[in-house]
Amino acid sequence: MRQQTSFIFDLDGTLTDSVYQNVFAWKTALDSEGIPLAMWRIHRKIGMSGGLMLKMLAREIGLEIHPDQAKRLSDIHAKAYKELEGQISALPGAVELLDTLSRDKLKWCIATSGGMDTATINLKALGLDIADVNLITRDDVKYGKPDPDLFLAGANKLAVPIEECLVIGDAIWDMLAARRCKATGIGLLSGGYDTGELERAGALRVYEDPRALLQHLDEVASRPSP
Amino acid sequence: MRQQTSFIFDLDGTLTDSVYQNVFAWKTALDSEGIPLAMWRIHRKIGMSGGLMLKMLAREIGLEIHPDQAKRLSDIHAKAYKELEGQISALPGAVELLDTLSRDKLKWCIATSGGMDTATINLKALGLDIADVNLITRDDVKYGKPDPDLFLAGANKLAVPIEECLVIGDAIWDMLAARRCKATGIGLLSGGYDTGELERAGALRVYEDPRALLQHLDEVASRPSP
Repeated sequence: MRQQTSFIFDLDGTLTDSVYQNVFAWKTALDSEGIPLAMWRIHRKIGMSGGLMLKMLAREIGLEIHPDQAKRLSDIHAKAYKELEGQISALPGAVELLDTLSRDKLKWCIATSGGMDTATINLKALGLDIADVNLITRDDVKYGKPDPDLFLAGANKLAVPIEECLVIGDAIWDMLAARRCKATGIGLLSGGYDTGELERAGALRVYEDPRALLQHLDEVASRPSP
Repeated sequence: MRQQTSFIFDLDGTLTDSVYQNVFAWKTALDSEGIPLAMWRIHRKIGMSGGLMLKMLAREIGLEIHPDQAKRLSDIHAKAYKELEGQISALPGAVELLDTLSRDKLKWCIATSGGMDTATINLKALGLDIADVNLITRDDVKYGKPDPDLFLAGANKLAVPIEECLVIGDAIWDMLAARRCKATGIGLLSGGYDTGELERAGALRVYEDPRALLQHLDEVASRPSP
């Protein structure tokens, strides 16, 4: 039987322009707890699960973050992110890309390290209704990225083999997680990472944003079913 | 005569943690003029002169930005940046690095693509008094980065040959400008660029932040005068 490509999309920075708002929200949270951390270090961790991010950042700067403090940080982050909601919009080409896949009967889902609350904000920016989308969030799996659980759950929801899936993401965590489950990683620059970083983390191809991926879709995806 | 290294520092993202606030301020300005531009595209242009940045961004997205609109954008940016002033702090090791150079009688200056208003905010975060610092701003030269004028003016102010200067910067624009005037570029990751990008733009060495440069100073700078 003819192989059919399926798509697993990351959400923040991949379909919506929200990574920098996310960085700011974490900065607000960390500042409020008196944890000094340069913005670029936060940026470099966006896209992994929030808990793992705090653990890695703490290790990097030699701090300890207790579970109750992690909970407070997470709550302040969620509040600060919500306040920036008005700034978050779909990335160029994101809506057209998803529409094209649906029209061509190529299966797709969204697998995000964020929880349902942030996912809702981002889906709204895409003009999508949660009820109509195959969505996997942090709440559905034990571990977020760079563990592959979210992508495996996505492939499972689409009822396709993970090996035939493209994982579209903007962060090296997406690419590392894709490699760990034998999906094929495709990187986008729209979250602020560089081509070289994404390639070193396993991306087969790197495009600027969803529009550029749409323009080059035939490089990486099977043709629509006849 | 024994060669002596002199240092020309970029300011935003190199000595102070202010690049992301700068991105946000430009986003606020562009949004207010109805110019849709993804955050990562703005981030990638920070560190070049504001006017050139707007010209390049306009070309990238196929828009025209009229001079009066550029003026409005610049004013709104300055106001938005000023509002984020409280969030801007010295990067780890920045103050210690400058103190060490001064103590060791190695000459240094600051050459920023920003104007005097933003420079003042950043110097305050460093605990420096404008009167005590060799400072070159956008207002002192015809062209900002990636033109080399700012660095040439810096070397001139220090009365040293540009070829014996290290240019310390976080943006590829610093590295490109350094190469154009035969200074030696040293990249820092603290503005959110990746090692590979900085190296491709000419950086001889790349360190995480001012603290890491201080820890590895002997790799790139002459020893203090006896």
